[in-house]
Amino acid sequence: MAIGTSVIMRIEMDKTKTGFGQVISEITNAGGDVVAIDVIRASKESTIRDVTINVSDAEDGRLTEAVASLPGVRVVNVSDRTFLVHLGGKVEVQPKVKITNRDDLSRVYTPGVARVCMAIHDDPGKAHTLTIKRNTVAVVSDGTAVLGLGDIGPKAAMPVMEGKAMLFKQLAGVDAFPICLDTKDTEEIIRTIKAIAPGFGGINLEDIASPRCFEIEERLKAELDIPVFHDDQHGTAVVMLAGLLNALRLVDKPMERVKAVLVGCGAAGTACSKILLSAGIGELVCVDRMGALVPGETYDNPNWNWLAERTNPRRLRGGVSDVIRGADVFIGVSRPNVLTVEDVQSMAKDPIVFAMANPEPEISPEAAEPYVRVIATGRGDYPNQINNVLCFPGIFRGALDCRATSINEEMKLAAARAIASVVSDDELNEYYIIPSTFNDKVVERVSRAVAEAAIRTGVARRIPNDLR
Amino acid sequence: MAIGTSVIMRIEMDKTKTGFGQVISEITNAGGDVVAIDVIRASKESTIRDVTINVSDAEDGRLTEAVASLPGVRVVNVSDRTFLVHLGGKVEVQPKVKITNRDDLSRVYTPGVARVCMAIHDDPGKAHTLTIKRNTVAVVSDGTAVLGLGDIGPKAAMPVMEGKAMLFKQLAGVDAFPICLDTKDTEEIIRTIKAIAPGFGGINLEDIASPRCFEIEERLKAELDIPVFHDDQHGTAVVMLAGLLNALRLVDKPMERVKAVLVGCGAAGTACSKILLSAGIGELVCVDRMGALVPGETYDNPNWNWLAERTNPRRLRGGVSDVIRGADVFIGVSRPNVLTVEDVQSMAKDPIVFAMANPEPEISPEAAEPYVRVIATGRGDYPNQINNVLCFPGIFRGALDCRATSINEEMKLAAARAIASVVSDDELNEYYIIPSTFNDKVVERVSRAVAEAAIRTGVARRIPNDLR
Repeated sequence: MAIGTSVIMRIEMDKTKTGFGQVISEITNAGGDVVAIDVIRASKESTIRDVTINVSDAEDGRLTEAVASLPGVRVVNVSDRTFLVHLGGKVEVQPKVKITNRDDLSRVYTPGVARVCMAIHDDPGKAHTLTIKRNTVAVVSDGTAVLGLGDIGPKAAMPVMEGKAMLFKQLAGVDAFPICLDTKDTEEIIRTIKAIAPGFGGINLEDIASPRCFEIEERLKAELDIPVFHDDQHGTAVVMLAGLLNALRLVDKPMERVKAVLVGCGAAGTACSKILLSAGIGELVCVDRMGALVPGETYDNPNWNWLAERTNPRRLRGGVSDVIRGADVFIGVSRPNVLTVEDVQSMAKDPIVFAMANPEPEISPEAAEPYVRVIATGRGDYPNQINNVLCFPGIFRGALDCRATSINEEMKLAAARAIASVVSDDELNEYYIIPSTFNDKVVERVSRAVAEAAIRTGVARRIPNDLR
Repeated sequence: MAIGTSVIMRIEMDKTKTGFGQVISEITNAGGDVVAIDVIRASKESTIRDVTINVSDAEDGRLTEAVASLPGVRVVNVSDRTFLVHLGGKVEVQPKVKITNRDDLSRVYTPGVARVCMAIHDDPGKAHTLTIKRNTVAVVSDGTAVLGLGDIGPKAAMPVMEGKAMLFKQLAGVDAFPICLDTKDTEEIIRTIKAIAPGFGGINLEDIASPRCFEIEERLKAELDIPVFHDDQHGTAVVMLAGLLNALRLVDKPMERVKAVLVGCGAAGTACSKILLSAGIGELVCVDRMGALVPGETYDNPNWNWLAERTNPRRLRGGVSDVIRGADVFIGVSRPNVLTVEDVQSMAKDPIVFAMANPEPEISPEAAEPYVRVIATGRGDYPNQINNVLCFPGIFRGALDCRATSINEEMKLAAARAIASVVSDDELNEYYIIPSTFNDKVVERVSRAVAEAAIRTGVARRIPNDLR
């Protein structure tokens, strides 16, 4: 299914010349689907109406032309509902209390605020209780790897970061602020994020191109005392693992005996590989354009050397088709059409295929379905969507609640298990291995499990009330 | 009057041992003033009450000790109302619309958001309409000159910037986000602000120490295409000028014939001098620790050379007492006690004294009052407070409304005149030359005047609807 768009067309029409039924027919013929009508003004001769129309893709003018060609009909304007919701941006900064008089003002601002400033000056740890640092995350991108769009620049990346900030607040009560950086230089990005860090309780890196995303994250993790989390890597990895845990539960295979092939050793693929190793997967073979990574070989990309040393114990060589034979699981974070039906047919019994390339999966779900036991994708229009939205709100909620200094591997594993746990044994089936993004148990369970893991691994600076 | 503080003391008392009247007496004797009582729990023998107490300074334990010394009385805890209002910070980031289903999600986030991203990518000017850039200002500080507290660091500066963000939103509907920088390096500060600029429609610099604040502002003004405004300099200057315009209206002296002495050639003093020159003041003499700045002399500070060349046409030399004789106006942005009663007595008829040093003015208003026609200070507990809150919300509202590329001298002058205009001829008197911070005409008039000035001077990229 193609992703639909809605437009609102304002139409002024002379009723003596054309009937509204004709207008609707014309819209339908041009590929539009009328879903709502509001009468804005009506007189004896003419009416103005807002007609909401679903179209299969962006209105390219065809629809407008068709309607305007009718006698006595004028198209006043056409508004795109997606654009309308973006007007002026999608988040705002609100005071938590209203200042109603001079007394209030002297408490939240000068002169009263001076005592609060000095309390933090005397004990910087108090920034976590007396400022927005307690609950605020920066969503930072350089705009170089936005969605599937690539390097579109910092201004064009803002709508994605704003959307993410909306989700942080609505789903987990986390205040998130979008920051898009006008630099692509690794050192400059690191310096900038370190410079703005004092007011934030966490840093969510987003849509930063590989390979510099690795160094940026590693360096910031080492040099800041607040959690730094590159969502494209770890969010994907956590949700993939959650789905895989449930898929394995369904086919009753223990993780430590599973053979998996992962294709696409970029940012997300590397993170997926790491979390699979942390989760104790039986055998993992990583494949990129040059074929399977083999221990002992040397690659240009330092990540590939790291992966090669820790995977592929049988030293398999070749492309996907060569190494997939007998595998239990396929994990794709690469590009369309890297997996064929024949490849799937060569897998072990009850094949599990996670084809997460966006927007076009590694194999079309329709083609794969007859031969797989479980298929998951990155898309919302198929079952089993591997969607980062299941991870980032809860993982930061948990990290902020316990004032964690970092988000470590244990916390990510805990998040994956918590997401998986939301699907009960009764509910679990081939088309439901992962909860919906709107399931409110997800954030609750993830945040709690993450805080517990943080405490257990010694990175928490505070025990949340509900864990005392 | 010292600045008061309120505390809330939770008291558990055995009614058989002490009466509540005794508790109140004890609080009063220890210097506290009980202003509210809430009963939290009561039984036959004991009660728990929250007692709100105004104290003249931070509760230092004396009050608590006094109350706890009564028989059968236990102080459960003492909360400071100023600290309570700061818990968890004072602003939050809210979505403008709620995401209620998958359809909403696909519009504000992937996949629908991609079309909005690409529209901005194709025309970066659209960032002003389709992202928060339209209405969002960064309030940026390095924490080196916070209030009167000095270099207290970025974490300790956050409560001030958060307070400012509250005022921006409440008074002018501007979304402002506090950013405190973990660097004091001029180049680093400039780089960082440039890097984070894509998502913002303006930059409010705040509490950055002199002299680097000058270079930072100048460079950013030259290198960014959005307004950059160092409020400590220009906010003070604008509001000072507004007050002076009205004081001169009161004494019926035309600006171009006024002789003024300004003391304190730091950040605010330099900005005040510049705006007085722009406003066409008759004669201005600037004084700092080394005495009056004299044309032709050379000073270490480049600002002082700039000022010396443009002021003091009669080449007066010496300290305040030497140059103030016969002056109409004294402007102080320096330190306590630089102006004596004798100095004031040597001024021309109807002396106007703006003693803006904080928290202690250049001359105490009580001492000056018998000899001046008008006195203004920076304090809220005397009449005529020169308060930046009168300027920054409206000036940014106006600049954002017309999508200004900068805030220029004309716009600042327009803001000052607009603030002054709020006080009508009927209202104008010695104790009311400047409107209250809560007067809602201020933002309305300032923003409109600023947008008009921006359009007139060619820095507006859009004509607001109400100016069309």
